[in-house]
Amino acid sequence: MNAERIEVRAGSPGEAGSAVWIGRGLLESAASLLFSPSGRFLLISAPAARAAADVLRGALAGRLILDLTIDDREEAKTLDGVARIADAALAAGLRRDDALVAVGGGVTTDVAGFAAAVLLRGVAWNAVPSTTAAMADAAVGGKTGVNHPLGKNLLGAFHPARAILVDPAALATLPERDYRSGLVEGFKAAWIADAPLAERAERALSLLLAREEEALLDLVAGAVRVKAGIVSSDPKEEGRRRLLNFGHTLGHAFEAAGGYRDLRHGEAVAWGIAAALEISRDRAGLSNEEAARVREVLARLGPFPQPRRDPALLAPYLARDKKATASGRAGILLEAIGRARVEEAIPEEAWLAAAARGQI
Amino acid sequence: MNAERIEVRAGSPGEAGSAVWIGRGLLESAASLLFSPSGRFLLISAPAARAAADVLRGALAGRLILDLTIDDREEAKTLDGVARIADAALAAGLRRDDALVAVGGGVTTDVAGFAAAVLLRGVAWNAVPSTTAAMADAAVGGKTGVNHPLGKNLLGAFHPARAILVDPAALATLPERDYRSGLVEGFKAAWIADAPLAERAERALSLLLAREEEALLDLVAGAVRVKAGIVSSDPKEEGRRRLLNFGHTLGHAFEAAGGYRDLRHGEAVAWGIAAALEISRDRAGLSNEEAARVREVLARLGPFPQPRRDPALLAPYLARDKKATASGRAGILLEAIGRARVEEAIPEEAWLAAAARGQI
Repeated sequence: MNAERIEVRAGSPGEAGSAVWIGRGLLESAASLLFSPSGRFLLISAPAARAAADVLRGALAGRLILDLTIDDREEAKTLDGVARIADAALAAGLRRDDALVAVGGGVTTDVAGFAAAVLLRGVAWNAVPSTTAAMADAAVGGKTGVNHPLGKNLLGAFHPARAILVDPAALATLPERDYRSGLVEGFKAAWIADAPLAERAERALSLLLAREEEALLDLVAGAVRVKAGIVSSDPKEEGRRRLLNFGHTLGHAFEAAGGYRDLRHGEAVAWGIAAALEISRDRAGLSNEEAARVREVLARLGPFPQPRRDPALLAPYLARDKKATASGRAGILLEAIGRARVEEAIPEEAWLAAAARGQI
Repeated sequence: MNAERIEVRAGSPGEAGSAVWIGRGLLESAASLLFSPSGRFLLISAPAARAAADVLRGALAGRLILDLTIDDREEAKTLDGVARIADAALAAGLRRDDALVAVGGGVTTDVAGFAAAVLLRGVAWNAVPSTTAAMADAAVGGKTGVNHPLGKNLLGAFHPARAILVDPAALATLPERDYRSGLVEGFKAAWIADAPLAERAERALSLLLAREEEALLDLVAGAVRVKAGIVSSDPKEEGRRRLLNFGHTLGHAFEAAGGYRDLRHGEAVAWGIAAALEISRDRAGLSNEEAARVREVLARLGPFPQPRRDPALLAPYLARDKKATASGRAGILLEAIGRARVEEAIPEEAWLAAAARGQI
């Protein structure tokens, strides 16, 4: 085991943060890396993460008081999904000093993490992401939650996983479409805050697409370092953390407009980024050359299915964006590769025009 | 308006705490005392708190974006109840800078506070308790939550109300049985930590029972001060905060064994205290005289319906107590009036024997 450890102070001040372990062969060492005050664990896993879950079953043998497989489709990311985990955990005799382990993609870590947040008013949990999207983004940073008919992630809690194991072995059976679309979140982190990482990952793009582990670990570790730095300075998203939403305002609208079926999250974010590039050129001085570099990466990660761009369809989802406050809807703009900023009030017309224009 | 203000640091370190306002005529001043970053409020009220809610409607005229009356029976204190508030709040266009106002007893403040904790990953809320139990206990301290078929308050969050208005006018229509049983929580606070308060309230018991406001405000303010001191030193109940559970371990079991219908919460706690007095005499040196003084107060607040004391019925609820950890089930014992301590591992037999013996 040759692992990097990155600390994320994702909780409230004084609260425990997350330790993100990144490296090969971590799954086998789960017993020493995962956190549980009692030493007991409740395994919550996605069907597609079966291989990783099997390794954990071996590593945690004799310490599991629950082994639950959940429906991890976006449609199942609901309060009912949380209730089902809670029912099983309480029936298994969950105590305050036990801990959950979520093995899967972003839906699994979001739902299981939210269940951990509300069970007995909060028990510890751990994440073992089995998708590129969850490794680079979803499992890190303390946001948990579920969807509501009126919008994505409208119910949830800030409740960081205590330990997060990023082991490329967990990706073994990940379908190609998920592997590629998840890399969008890794690049997103580089584009908003780490120009050298963006350059390295661009140069390594062929290796990344070939699932070369060295290149993948470099991008994922870089993305986690970016997120750790930003989240640690603003855990509750009152300011700087909003930078991580680059591409997500329209991305969430595209995703919702496709009924959460037509587009993967990363694909919707890719289209959201393409649109944000348009606004960034208009309002933040992003150069045509750099916008083209970003689009080129997105094109090579794709091709992605086209989103529905109808303004009448997108507008209601935009209006319900969680980041909306009395002062308007903030947007994240790229000034240059490696440097983003928050613009506080971007008019709806500008969003909708960019949604129509953004190309990959 | 002549009000006392008590600060409770009930959140995580660095998080905003609660301001508890105690006095007559506060409801009319709600617009200046309740907290909302946007200035907009969502009113969540219990049917029985209609008079208080009416005053608030007037005080907050033009600033309410939702006016929702909820079912506040203990049976409705469920995750579904939270979902119903969430549905209405999101449909009303809730934003992150809006705030909820919960008007009612403990069920209302527990459920609405929990909804505030998970809506958009946490919005601010305020409490206007309309029962003696909620004034002296439930609305203060940051615990929110709902029941689960396997036990009481098994799902929830620590999410303190930003402002809590304790105005005796809100009690105007409170039924006698609720008024009296709620005082048990006020006396509980005095018994565990404030001997002079306990003495004053004992002497004023006839006035308290006659709803004399001066006596009531003295007991409630004293109880809030006790709770503020304890909670501020241990918001997440890792140590000292457990003292507030005096009478609650068996109290919750009695309440559950009665199907949450036979006994009011305060009545169940009264029986739980009567049982805890037995264990306290056996293990904590509580004198017979002081035990008798406590019982005398409980008798005058009653008479309360008898609980079901069958050990076979109570044992499963005891086993699921949230305070149980790998090291056993902790209990709160009274050493003397005004002084309690946590005993870490009290055997189940001792609990069940005391449940059978405790008399009021």
